[in-house]
Amino acid sequence: MSGKYVYLFREGHAAMNDLLGGKGANLAEMLHIGLNVPPGFTITTEACREYYRKGQQIPEGLWDQILPAVRNLEGETGKEFGNLDNPLLVSVRSGAKVSMPGMMDTILNLGLNDRTVEALAKKTGNPRFAYDCYRRFIQMFADVVLEIERFYFEEVLERLKEEQGVRYDSELSTESLQKIISLYKEITERESKAPFPDDPLDQLRQAILAVFRSWGNHRAIIYRRANRIPDDMGTAVNIQAMVFGNMGDDSGTGVAFTRSPSTGEPVLYGEYLMNAKGEDVVAGTRTPKPIQSLAEDNPEIYRQFVEISSKLERHYKNMQDIEFTIEKGKLFILQTRNGKCTISAALRIAVDLAREGLISREEAVRRIDANQLGTLLHRRIDDEAVFNVIATGLAASPGAASGKIVFDADLAEARGLAGEKVLLVRMETTPDDIHGVLAAQGILTSRGGMTSHAAVVARHMGKPAVCGCEALKIDYAKRTVTIDNTVYKEDDILSIDGGTGRVIAGQVPLRDPDLSDEFRIILEWADEIRQLQVMANADTPIDAAVAREFGAEGIGLCRTEHMFMDPARLPSVQRMILAQTIEERLEALNELLPMQEKDFYEILKIMQGFPVTIRLLDPPLHEFLPDEEGITKEITRLQAEEATRDKEEQLYIQEVLLRKVRSLHEQNPMLGHRGCRIGITYPEIYSMQARAVFQATTRLLREGVEVKPLVKIPLVAHYNELRILRKVVTDEAEKVMAEQGITFEYKVGAMLEVPRSILTADTIAPYTDFYSYGTNDLTQTVFGFSRDDSEAKFLPFYLDNKIIADNPFVVIDREGVGQMMKIGVDLARSVKPDIKIGICGEHGGDPSSIEFSEKIGLDYVSCSAFRIPIARLGAAQSALKNRKA
Amino acid sequence: MSGKYVYLFREGHAAMNDLLGGKGANLAEMLHIGLNVPPGFTITTEACREYYRKGQQIPEGLWDQILPAVRNLEGETGKEFGNLDNPLLVSVRSGAKVSMPGMMDTILNLGLNDRTVEALAKKTGNPRFAYDCYRRFIQMFADVVLEIERFYFEEVLERLKEEQGVRYDSELSTESLQKIISLYKEITERESKAPFPDDPLDQLRQAILAVFRSWGNHRAIIYRRANRIPDDMGTAVNIQAMVFGNMGDDSGTGVAFTRSPSTGEPVLYGEYLMNAKGEDVVAGTRTPKPIQSLAEDNPEIYRQFVEISSKLERHYKNMQDIEFTIEKGKLFILQTRNGKCTISAALRIAVDLAREGLISREEAVRRIDANQLGTLLHRRIDDEAVFNVIATGLAASPGAASGKIVFDADLAEARGLAGEKVLLVRMETTPDDIHGVLAAQGILTSRGGMTSHAAVVARHMGKPAVCGCEALKIDYAKRTVTIDNTVYKEDDILSIDGGTGRVIAGQVPLRDPDLSDEFRIILEWADEIRQLQVMANADTPIDAAVAREFGAEGIGLCRTEHMFMDPARLPSVQRMILAQTIEERLEALNELLPMQEKDFYEILKIMQGFPVTIRLLDPPLHEFLPDEEGITKEITRLQAEEATRDKEEQLYIQEVLLRKVRSLHEQNPMLGHRGCRIGITYPEIYSMQARAVFQATTRLLREGVEVKPLVKIPLVAHYNELRILRKVVTDEAEKVMAEQGITFEYKVGAMLEVPRSILTADTIAPYTDFYSYGTNDLTQTVFGFSRDDSEAKFLPFYLDNKIIADNPFVVIDREGVGQMMKIGVDLARSVKPDIKIGICGEHGGDPSSIEFSEKIGLDYVSCSAFRIPIARLGAAQSALKNRKA
Repeated sequence: MSGKYVYLFREGHAAMNDLLGGKGANLAEMLHIGLNVPPGFTITTEACREYYRKGQQIPEGLWDQILPAVRNLEGETGKEFGNLDNPLLVSVRSGAKVSMPGMMDTILNLGLNDRTVEALAKKTGNPRFAYDCYRRFIQMFADVVLEIERFYFEEVLERLKEEQGVRYDSELSTESLQKIISLYKEITERESKAPFPDDPLDQLRQAILAVFRSWGNHRAIIYRRANRIPDDMGTAVNIQAMVFGNMGDDSGTGVAFTRSPSTGEPVLYGEYLMNAKGEDVVAGTRTPKPIQSLAEDNPEIYRQFVEISSKLERHYKNMQDIEFTIEKGKLFILQTRNGKCTISAALRIAVDLAREGLISREEAVRRIDANQLGTLLHRRIDDEAVFNVIATGLAASPGAASGKIVFDADLAEARGLAGEKVLLVRMETTPDDIHGVLAAQGILTSRGGMTSHAAVVARHMGKPAVCGCEALKIDYAKRTVTIDNTVYKEDDILSIDGGTGRVIAGQVPLRDPDLSDEFRIILEWADEIRQLQVMANADTPIDAAVAREFGAEGIGLCRTEHMFMDPARLPSVQRMILAQTIEERLEALNELLPMQEKDFYEILKIMQGFPVTIRLLDPPLHEFLPDEEGITKEITRLQAEEATRDKEEQLYIQEVLLRKVRSLHEQNPMLGHRGCRIGITYPEIYSMQARAVFQATTRLLREGVEVKPLVKIPLVAHYNELRILRKVVTDEAEKVMAEQGITFEYKVGAMLEVPRSILTADTIAPYTDFYSYGTNDLTQTVFGFSRDDSEAKFLPFYLDNKIIADNPFVVIDREGVGQMMKIGVDLARSVKPDIKIGICGEHGGDPSSIEFSEKIGLDYVSCSAFRIPIARLGAAQSALKNRKA
Repeated sequence: MSGKYVYLFREGHAAMNDLLGGKGANLAEMLHIGLNVPPGFTITTEACREYYRKGQQIPEGLWDQILPAVRNLEGETGKEFGNLDNPLLVSVRSGAKVSMPGMMDTILNLGLNDRTVEALAKKTGNPRFAYDCYRRFIQMFADVVLEIERFYFEEVLERLKEEQGVRYDSELSTESLQKIISLYKEITERESKAPFPDDPLDQLRQAILAVFRSWGNHRAIIYRRANRIPDDMGTAVNIQAMVFGNMGDDSGTGVAFTRSPSTGEPVLYGEYLMNAKGEDVVAGTRTPKPIQSLAEDNPEIYRQFVEISSKLERHYKNMQDIEFTIEKGKLFILQTRNGKCTISAALRIAVDLAREGLISREEAVRRIDANQLGTLLHRRIDDEAVFNVIATGLAASPGAASGKIVFDADLAEARGLAGEKVLLVRMETTPDDIHGVLAAQGILTSRGGMTSHAAVVARHMGKPAVCGCEALKIDYAKRTVTIDNTVYKEDDILSIDGGTGRVIAGQVPLRDPDLSDEFRIILEWADEIRQLQVMANADTPIDAAVAREFGAEGIGLCRTEHMFMDPARLPSVQRMILAQTIEERLEALNELLPMQEKDFYEILKIMQGFPVTIRLLDPPLHEFLPDEEGITKEITRLQAEEATRDKEEQLYIQEVLLRKVRSLHEQNPMLGHRGCRIGITYPEIYSMQARAVFQATTRLLREGVEVKPLVKIPLVAHYNELRILRKVVTDEAEKVMAEQGITFEYKVGAMLEVPRSILTADTIAPYTDFYSYGTNDLTQTVFGFSRDDSEAKFLPFYLDNKIIADNPFVVIDREGVGQMMKIGVDLARSVKPDIKIGICGEHGGDPSSIEFSEKIGLDYVSCSAFRIPIARLGAAQSALKNRKA
């Protein structure tokens, strides 16, 4: 079977990539929009398929089509294969429909032989360049076409460099290169049992077959299998004339972006060199000139380039990264592709392109990498900075910070308030350290995971933090921290990058957060597109204010335990825990009631009109008590004191505390007496919290503030738990309404955090107004991974070894956790079709997880305040994807 | 609408219970099989329904049908309503289709009035009895029919007893009773505003209407709602002649079982009294005679009773519990029902009935309560024993034990070996205590849950244990244990019941295990019926031998960690954990290899021909190291010693140990670095274990022993884990085959213990030969319950308050965990339709869980050796249920 196997570039177009491959179709496309690309032709994928169908024989009639294409190429270029004045040199490249980078081979400067090399030397006035091209061509041809082992050639090259006493290839003289060429030819003749082919047409024929053959090589097969590319697709072969920028002062070469890749400003940004080859621009041996100078060096070429730039942007509807060569006063575009740039530039470019009408707002929104957006919200290390990473910990809270090392919170506060920049470095932090965290630039701890006190508090305050950095050996007594045998003392400066977990010696240049107009505009456009409601996880009035500023449409998770951690309240909380009788417990709860009411009052007021979802107490009670070690030490200290009545009393208290701490101790607190299990066994705690919410509600209603309180019950496993606790909450609401003589709306919902609640979401549904996926705990229970333990022990190994693709605590594991979530949505909606279901927890701010959430039909995501912009953008992108699908 | 509302007993039969109610249909049935039941008639449920349809009016024509039935009854009994020589007395009882015990009312001795009571006194020769009947009749009638508050009557009764200076009703004289009767009548007249009805027909009419009314009383409505009984079912009313066993020496009364309820022996077992009423037999005021004496007292009646017993057994195909009365030489059967008996008797009776051809083997198997079977396998507290429970802990390992308190393992061993019966009492046990556990009668600990060391080891050894008994205050120094302010010293005797968790002061009488022929036969029959394979969880050759003895068809779970705990091996295990380099670790593993090989050799040998499933190492490594507290103490002790070289070395070792223990510490070890995560990070450990299995295999094959080794990977969450570890195992198998020049069959499987593995059971399936549900860990992760913590903290509260119905660690939670399991089975079979799936863990020995396992299509259950008989029987019962369904 025969047919049209060969297309000149001008005969193809972009849509023909099945037949011409991606590269061939693209070359055709550039030609069509009027660019001057070096001419050439493409041999189709069908020819390749036919080659394999025929048992690796050249398809019938193919060569007969190639020859006229070669003649045509000679005509277009005014060059000729083997011509000693103006020899035609070509590249031969594979190009499948799907890009398979590095999998198949390329041959450059085909057409060179012992005679044409001299012509090239003459035309470029650069014999060294010409012979180097020839040397490389032989080596490439021998490798790809003749399949001779590379090491023969490498050995020759190394030997000659040694003989010449030089280190780099580029230092070899023309004479040495000529010697190498003759040795290379000896090798090829010996190994291939035939002289090296002289005739360019012969070279071409062999090269084309070699490209066909490369489709079937082992590497390519493995790659296709891994990427699920069909084996019978075949590759096209592109034959293109070589052009050279080093053919005199009317020649040159350069690269340019159509807009600034750093700021996005709409001005050409690039550099070039006249009479130079491509490598010279990047090698730094000569200093390239800024692209704008071309207006003086060659006004016509510059005019053409400006016009082409603009045309390319309009055609590809994106900022372009262009490679060009001027050969004897003629401008050739070698390649154009979408340009890479910083996130700030990406925002500006997307907004500008949309305003210029080149792309839609949807497209502008789609183009921004939501994950990168986060870096703009925090102080970060300057892009240009050079620094020395001395250790890596967990990226616990994003942002970068530099400061003098301080080892305790009191000192951190004193010096921080005095205006010094300090970094709080501790093994771990406790609620007693909060004032120090607040005054420090950032936090660095040697212990604890992503959910450790330091990490949680830092994220809430928007402070940079690196936690669990086990390389730190802190000695509080000596006031030193040792990292890898280097000792850092108090006042030495360290820097941290909480977005990557890096710990850096000394000061690094920082850049402030960068909330440009474009940032704001893209998010506004995103809001027009997205379907998912975006809410914040916010536990304090400060959090709530930040959340509003970033555009949160309510609070999806207000954790109440951090309120209990306040040092002013801990005594009451501890009295509540230590209570021997219900009366004692109620007394302590009564002390907490006005404080809780004040918390909720302030948060509800800030979020006026927006829903505020308050989760009742979740952690095990022992988290509010000192640890056993601390109490034991205090007892030892007291025992050593002189006997006084006060001492005895103190000792008694500590002993009661110790007994309680021991009785509350759990093997696996994550799976222990916490969440709604606290509410079931001590309903008076939940009653107090519900009352605080509702009293704040009535107070605000009286003040004319609109409020939407929702109460959320954590860790539900069985519908009976929710049935009982819903009643605890509604009873309190009714009491408050009766007492205050005012009615209000509220909702009661359940967290879905353990598989059992999800598997029975239909039987729980009658007792809940909404559902909220707590994906942190859900990931822990679905995997059987404790987050802190797995991230400290085996998860890094799993990720490094690709046992699992992503950290499931960052990106929802769709196959497992996601599948579980889907089961819950389906069960819940089977009995309550309109029930609101959302996600709170850190996944709520991860774009991939947001996309998944929308896919399975969730109504909202809730994430930490600083991730709200990411979530807004992620939700819009997800909506766009779903629109397509 | 009218119809036939009244049926004489002889007009009905058993199948008519819709219309006649359960009691009425049963009375008819007894009559049909020729029993002499006191005659009577039944008013249909339809009459009751009509009563309600008509707005609580007596149905038209009902009375007209009742009168002839009364006349008929008078004819049959030769008695007459109101007759002063031979008065007819009747009982009026409700009887719905479904039994509603205690929900509706009964009136006895209806027909009594001031005149007929004298006739009754004369006939029985017992005026006190007659007047007491009358007194009771008035009180019942006033309560049920006239709805007069009970306290009026109770007050009169109490006052009269006080006046007479007596304590019990039975001590009141005839005169007092007459006085009470007249006071009762005054009350009824005052409260009902009408004289107490004299006319028996009037009494009957009112009583029937009262029974109808009682169907609609509040208690009955609530009961029906709770038990989902339809409200429109209605109740029937049974009117039956009273008979009296105290009408002279030709009268009598008694109760008898058709077989011994204690041993099941096929002989009548019961007692009777002549000239007595029912209460006399049970009251103990007179000593009843054994039923066999009736053969002398009244040979004809005895002959009749023997014949009736046999007839009833044949009719009801079960051992019967019969109540009878002889009135003036006539034997009446008042009631018969299936007799309750001990589990030993139940086994014997079931086997005998099947052998007698009365029931099928299937029916015999169905009748045994599998849960009770367990009590026969262990020493237990004698059924008759009286004892003082002083505390309750967790029922950690079944069986009862008494012994002298001993507080340490060495002493326990020394005295146990010397033949003394000792009870090892400790806060908790460690691997160092095993010799003490072995020598003790039982174990009692104050800390730790169902999976604590003491509990696990005790279950494996079949030793009784009560664990986590927090009421114990142990003082090792003083060698005392204080329980509720009572101090028990070393050598004091305590007893424990590991099946219930009871701790008992002093010695209790114990019964040895009771493995009768019938036990064996029922299990053989069960084996013929069951579909599920029953395997054992067995970790040692001893376990394996017990498992075989109890009929296990292989080992479904052989945990290897207990092998590592052996004090002789711990040093090597610890060296492996402390290894700084892979070489050091391999060296330690090489020490362990021959020991592991020996373990597997012995177990495989005992189980010859049966599959042996070996689970590779599962627990976190820190479980093999001493705890932090212990090391710290050792360090303190060493520091106090004089400086020697040895001391320094010891100190160094302890410090290394301490650092390692700290670095291995986990927040939630249950969700930490354990299971296959150990295998992934230290593949050499799994390699060694696999090699040990396969070397044992080849050794046995050479010896001509048939072996079926299976290797099981714990805690798989992702298919990549299994892919990698399967290769670790198969590589080792191939190496061993090559080294030994012998091939063998083996399988590699995965535990399904975390939800993720279940949700992806289809993607894991290609890498596994079988699946095994680890329902203990699965229950922990599906609920988010840590077993030890929840059972110690909140689970008892949940169970007491019916928040969850059963302990999910004992009975599979079908709605949650079970649903999850079903998902896994379906996914696995979707890609491997024939894959073997089973369950190991404690649920494997629970009948309800076994039934569920069969329902969702599992192939086998595996449980601890001592539960194998329960599982065999449970599996058979489950198969029978499924056959029906």
